[in-house]
Formats: sequence, C-alpha cells, structure tokens
Amino acid sequence: MSESKGRFAYDGLDRVIHEKARLSILTSLVSNPKGIAFNHLKSLCGLTDGNLSRHLQILEAAGLVSNTKSFVDNRPHTLCKITADGRKRYLKYLAVLEQVIGDATKAAKRELSTTKRQNPLPV
Amino acid sequence: MSESKGRFAYDGLDRVIHEKARLSILTSLVSNPKGIAFNHLKSLCGLTDGNLSRHLQILEAAGLVSNTKSFVDNRPHTLCKITADGRKRYLKYLAVLEQVIGDATKAAKRELSTTKRQNPLPV
Repeated sequence: MSESKGRFAYDGLDRVIHEKARLSILTSLVSNPKGIAFNHLKSLCGLTDGNLSRHLQILEAAGLVSNTKSFVDNRPHTLCKITADGRKRYLKYLAVLEQVIGDATKAAKRELSTTKRQNPLPV
Repeated sequence: MSESKGRFAYDGLDRVIHEKARLSILTSLVSNPKGIAFNHLKSLCGLTDGNLSRHLQILEAAGLVSNTKSFVDNRPHTLCKITADGRKRYLKYLAVLEQVIGDATKAAKRELSTTKRQNPLPV
C-alpha cells in the first residue's frame, strides 16, 4: 500500500457544512441565491420548525447564512439567504466532496478490473 | 420556484456513514478491500487511537465493518475490513452524495449564465 499519511483525512470537509441538515439547507440556498422563505425552506429540506431554526442559527453564527425577519400581511416572515462568504466556503467544501467521490470511484473501478482478471469472460 | 417538498432532503445520506471520521474510514477501506491494519488506518485518516476505536465500534455495530483481532510477533494486531453489506450501503450513500454535487453544480452554472446576461462581454 503506497498511500501516505492523511491520504483519506479530508480535512476540508468543514463540519459546520457537512452536517446532514445543514448540507440540505445550504444546497437549497445555493440553488436559490435570491433567498428562500423559512416555511418553504422547511418543506424543501424536510425539517421541523425547531430543527430548521436551530441549524439556521448555527449557520448564521458561522457567517454562512443571513436570516432577515420582517412582516408580510401582518405576519412574521423570515427570508433565508446564503452569504457571499457562505457560497465561497460551500464551493470549497464541495471540491473536497468531489475528491471523496473520485477516490471511491477509483476503488470501485480497480475492484471491477480485478474481478474481470479472476473471472475472464468465456471465449 | 417549482421545487417540490423534500427536494433537498437527501434522505439517503445515512448518518452512520456521513459523519466525517467514518466517511474517511469507509473510503479508506473501500479503496483497500483486503483490509487495513489499525495503525495504518489511523495514519491514513489522521485520527487518534481513541477516535478511531470509537468509530470502528460504531461501524462494526452497524454491520459495515469487521475488526479482526490477532497476534503478530506477540503483539496485538487488528485488521479492519469493510463488509459486503458495508460496501453496498457505502455505494448507495455515494449515489446520494453525487446528487448533492449535481444539484450544486446546476446552481453554479445557472448563476454563471445569469451573470453573463447581466454583464455581456464587450464586442
């Protein structure tokens, strides 16, 4: 095995972004750069009120998302948007994710070619 | 916005696999199907003894990994291997990860074409 120290450490997999619910939220928001209303975001990500609130707070504290509260037709309304910095960090994270997929795909291909050598097709 | 309920929920992102350290461990193991010795795995994933032990226990309890203890030159030796079921679940997880990347890439391309329309190149 020629693989070196930290070869599979994936240090760039930022834990703030990597958490499953937050990855859903950020992928929704990066796909809708004008922002998404809280209730719609909740539905897109399949999250509960409490869960979405909690994760939006974490993302806002980390500077990845802005949550703007206002009133629409006398009802409270929250617009959630990814920030410029959030977008930059999300894209950086994505590049590491692509590396994981690349590594796994390489492994799958290698295994397939080994299987072929062990069980050649009949001629 | 025409996106439907749960569009970005990514239910297939199995939390047992998605956790950052466990994703490292499984990607190492899927890339080395004959197994990896505990100490080498620790180095490849950049984990401490305690962290690797804890996550290997979780992965073994979930049926994704087998940890075989033996003695080599009178010293304890643990060989870690991904199970057949682990491999299957990892590849299923990977397909959802590719969907996340696909969604984000689509968003990035859409944004790029909007920017081009707003700032056409000088002729």
